[in-house]
Amino acid sequence: MLDPTSVGLVKPQTVRFDEPLMLKCGRTLSRYELVYETYGELNPARSNAVLVCHALSGSHHVAGYYSEDRKSAGWWENMVGPGKPIDTRRFFVVGVNNLGGCHGSTGPASINPETGKPYGASFPIVTVEDWVASQARLADYLGIEQWAAVVGGSLGGMQALQWSIDFPTRVRHAIAIAAAPKLTAQNIAFNDVARQAILTDPDFHNGDFYSYGVVPRWGLRLARMLGHITYLSDDSMAEKFGRELRAGDYTFGWDIEFEIESYLRYQGDKFASHFDANTYLLMTKALDYFDPAYPYGGDLSAAFRPARAAFLVISFTSDWRFSPGRSRDIVKALLDNKLDVTYAEITSAHGHDSFLMEDPHYHALMRAYMENIDIGGGR
Amino acid sequence: MLDPTSVGLVKPQTVRFDEPLMLKCGRTLSRYELVYETYGELNPARSNAVLVCHALSGSHHVAGYYSEDRKSAGWWENMVGPGKPIDTRRFFVVGVNNLGGCHGSTGPASINPETGKPYGASFPIVTVEDWVASQARLADYLGIEQWAAVVGGSLGGMQALQWSIDFPTRVRHAIAIAAAPKLTAQNIAFNDVARQAILTDPDFHNGDFYSYGVVPRWGLRLARMLGHITYLSDDSMAEKFGRELRAGDYTFGWDIEFEIESYLRYQGDKFASHFDANTYLLMTKALDYFDPAYPYGGDLSAAFRPARAAFLVISFTSDWRFSPGRSRDIVKALLDNKLDVTYAEITSAHGHDSFLMEDPHYHALMRAYMENIDIGGGR
Repeated sequence: MLDPTSVGLVKPQTVRFDEPLMLKCGRTLSRYELVYETYGELNPARSNAVLVCHALSGSHHVAGYYSEDRKSAGWWENMVGPGKPIDTRRFFVVGVNNLGGCHGSTGPASINPETGKPYGASFPIVTVEDWVASQARLADYLGIEQWAAVVGGSLGGMQALQWSIDFPTRVRHAIAIAAAPKLTAQNIAFNDVARQAILTDPDFHNGDFYSYGVVPRWGLRLARMLGHITYLSDDSMAEKFGRELRAGDYTFGWDIEFEIESYLRYQGDKFASHFDANTYLLMTKALDYFDPAYPYGGDLSAAFRPARAAFLVISFTSDWRFSPGRSRDIVKALLDNKLDVTYAEITSAHGHDSFLMEDPHYHALMRAYMENIDIGGGR
Repeated sequence: MLDPTSVGLVKPQTVRFDEPLMLKCGRTLSRYELVYETYGELNPARSNAVLVCHALSGSHHVAGYYSEDRKSAGWWENMVGPGKPIDTRRFFVVGVNNLGGCHGSTGPASINPETGKPYGASFPIVTVEDWVASQARLADYLGIEQWAAVVGGSLGGMQALQWSIDFPTRVRHAIAIAAAPKLTAQNIAFNDVARQAILTDPDFHNGDFYSYGVVPRWGLRLARMLGHITYLSDDSMAEKFGRELRAGDYTFGWDIEFEIESYLRYQGDKFASHFDANTYLLMTKALDYFDPAYPYGGDLSAAFRPARAAFLVISFTSDWRFSPGRSRDIVKALLDNKLDVTYAEITSAHGHDSFLMEDPHYHALMRAYMENIDIGGGR
């Protein structure tokens, strides 16, 4: 064990579903695989299961390590583990890579059984609703009739909200952190610039770059650089980098001049070296399409009418991607339905990325909420 | 005359300077041309000249028309003209394309006299200080010892501020609109993503695309799309586009889904069809480098110590690129020097682009300030 508060070494598992999944876009996945991880033990009453949904670039690898290398830690290692806010001594935690992903679940780089080639651009557009439907099948497979909680940040929080609408009796608590009930025009605009960067990269080859032995790395790098700006706050960038110069003085050249440039390019390069460009496109589209109020003419309160869960909604003051106002829109709609809602607006300088950070107030709140979840039985 | 409040048909003029210009970057332009336009008449006392400095994508074509086509209007047609806030019946207004530009002044697409080929990437990096120095030579050439006012928005406002520092006795009023005393890390980050989009476009050819018969249009398009998001406010995009769908309903495809995507791509395409990619790079670098407090260890008040002008500083509430707080930093530094300062924070929903819009409050303020400028003599 690397650390007593870590779940330690973990291994992903894979489950294959042969029952076709009808998608929101009208197309069908005839069969698919989901890769997932679990931490902790499912109790005999099967009442302590927690689903952690991932955001744009996350995966099923929520906690623990794949090797002694600390870099192999799960993306929410600070939140999930023995004694952590989502305590694996008490909860059975499940992480799953979403359909369309690039971490093992069926996605654009997977072989399309009908053609024997990677799906590439032919992979269907998947939505938050589709992910929730596929996660419900995973729950069936794991013998989980009802989640004690479905939890997620950002796009993951949207999945938690969708769970409460699509499967009201299967989720006791929905925890949506740094989420929004739908993207604004500005959010969509940033996503579209990122997509256009990938789509117009000559190495994208209309999504079929796999067979050309190339990846659209420049486009993916730009997409990530841009995304990264929107995940941080103006203040946190100012504090971390300010106008600090690489060489100590202006060089008046085209190389890196300011440290912020170095940081962003590094983040972009790192991401582009491992992430799948088609998955990036799909994830941004899922964000764009998320809008549970859409079938109700924009009435979010109507959208939440089926919900029965208790909710924890958390926002961060410096998050300008999904600002606190967006979380308050969610809270208002939940209250319109007289649902049990806890809302907290956490003072944090770290922007949208705050949901991944170890802020004491935020973690104390998560800990307290999770401790109060009754796992003595169903309800 | 197309319109009695327009200066009407105008023609640019070109002046060539054979005296070498030593640039901030340490390199020298041995000779160069500036293209400019003038509107109104210089009075016998030569006391009514107003210099209008342009921002990233502007030019010397500030007002008037090149033809009967309304689309040929200058970029500040609503501000400059007979009876307009900058009234050409009273003022002699000068617009100039900055060095490194792509509208006629010597820039990267110009022929380098030493090689007989376009400068391309070898064009030196130019700064706000260099522009002001070259504008001072234009003033000499036009016989203008002292500007009644130097006016600009955004990057143009930075030039107005720099004029007040570098040539204290040559500018009576400096008007800086939607400006900032320096870029933040977030501002630089957005600029760097835009630059990287151009620099990594395979058609950029290290800046020498002219000889390949191509232009890095995909990179330039991305840069402009991204820039455009930062010029608008979240609210104005929400009001103008919201989540309006192109086809009336989700199509779940890769074509334009939301109207905002259509708008941004159109803006990007239009810009990429006429603007020079090297100029775009240079303009963003000039923005990054602007920081008059830099030689004073970050002390902006010290930077303004030489200034003698009166100042009008204007910001817009919804401008998140150069927010009102940045203008207040300027005002504070000016007041520390006991300078004559008028400051207005205009309530506007249009973000950074507000400085180009015809807001009644904003225009009334400009009109009143300009009317109060004494042109009866020097001071």
